[in-house]
Amino acid sequence: MIRALTFDTYGTVVDWRTSVLDELRALADRKVLRLDSVLFLDEWKAAYRPGMDDVNRGARPWTTVDAIYRRRLVELLPKHGVSLATDEIDALTRVWWRLRPWPDALAGLRRLKRRYILSPLSNASFIGMVELARWAGLPWDCVITAENARCYKPRPEVYRTAITLLGLAPAEIMMVAAHNYDLAAARGEGMATAFVPRALEYGTGQTTDLAPAQAWDVVAADFEDLATRLGC
Amino acid sequence: MIRALTFDTYGTVVDWRTSVLDELRALADRKVLRLDSVLFLDEWKAAYRPGMDDVNRGARPWTTVDAIYRRRLVELLPKHGVSLATDEIDALTRVWWRLRPWPDALAGLRRLKRRYILSPLSNASFIGMVELARWAGLPWDCVITAENARCYKPRPEVYRTAITLLGLAPAEIMMVAAHNYDLAAARGEGMATAFVPRALEYGTGQTTDLAPAQAWDVVAADFEDLATRLGC
Repeated sequence: MIRALTFDTYGTVVDWRTSVLDELRALADRKVLRLDSVLFLDEWKAAYRPGMDDVNRGARPWTTVDAIYRRRLVELLPKHGVSLATDEIDALTRVWWRLRPWPDALAGLRRLKRRYILSPLSNASFIGMVELARWAGLPWDCVITAENARCYKPRPEVYRTAITLLGLAPAEIMMVAAHNYDLAAARGEGMATAFVPRALEYGTGQTTDLAPAQAWDVVAADFEDLATRLGC
Repeated sequence: MIRALTFDTYGTVVDWRTSVLDELRALADRKVLRLDSVLFLDEWKAAYRPGMDDVNRGARPWTTVDAIYRRRLVELLPKHGVSLATDEIDALTRVWWRLRPWPDALAGLRRLKRRYILSPLSNASFIGMVELARWAGLPWDCVITAENARCYKPRPEVYRTAITLLGLAPAEIMMVAAHNYDLAAARGEGMATAFVPRALEYGTGQTTDLAPAQAWDVVAADFEDLATRLGC
């Protein structure tokens, strides 16, 4: 019945938080700076949802998350007393292309790939997902992101773009995400849903998305468990 | 300078002709039919370019090559005295998703992938390219096809879609093709060009695309030679 799996990526497949924190701390060491990396990341990441919402409600033309993050970075650096050259700012923005998969992710994806078509369905830029996949070894069969629809999840156009490109019935595609809002939108388009909670995505104090908000088709502990539940 | 390579696929990466002929002959054996497989394939393939041109000039709405081939197949089968059930027609249409790579293709692509982002830029349907890549083991980093632009090569929108999605300057992307018309269109958008002739694409009597029609940036004997010329 299910022929393809589409994956939210930031948080669901990769652990963006500790990956970015490591690079911020390495930057601070290299530059001999005192930098509150956790605060810096919180303030950086805080640009993500409002930047996408601006695009979704038409307040801004299509803007990639790379551009959203770069714009915020340029604002944040002086506020935190950090001075970087343009090429250093570019390189730091691309930290979002170098994020470690959760420990179970690669093994689970490799098992799932034997039986299912695997694609991201992420708010990443297209090239950002391509580079992340190359860096992290994510075994996608193709790449579909918000950029293919030129708007962001949870707008229905994003899910519809994936359904159209994959040439399948919505129910033949399962959205896999650690975020209930993403699965709710996918279900709204008729897709199957799998919830894989990532209780440490936002660190040890995380209070959201710890449990399924609806009766999703599958709830799995991690990607290895997902593979088992889907017969791989 | 070059960061990504985009590949024409039918004819350039895979040998569609002998792959389809093998399946037509196997079908004739299985059904105990007398079928002129070469003539049948010629007549089937003849639907390809006119079907795409109809879309490009607006005479038809967006139609995948899968749908173009299926429509022609339904016309051709009775003409050749072949009676197939609907599921058999569907399966035979999908022969275009099961095409053997040329002998040098996989080894060349694997070498090129170490250094460059690899994507198809094909007139295939998106799912057709995904399925072909899974079947043939093509190591793409992503999939971009005419379906992403909803028109066909050599329309400039197809090349521009790839350039935009890859987030690169046109000159950072090299189009690789066995067909001069494809490279001419890519060059028209500012892309770099590599010609890899496939003298047997149409069988031993082929008279077209045996030599470069312009001074392309690279002319390579095959994909291994291309990898060597591009420093892999």
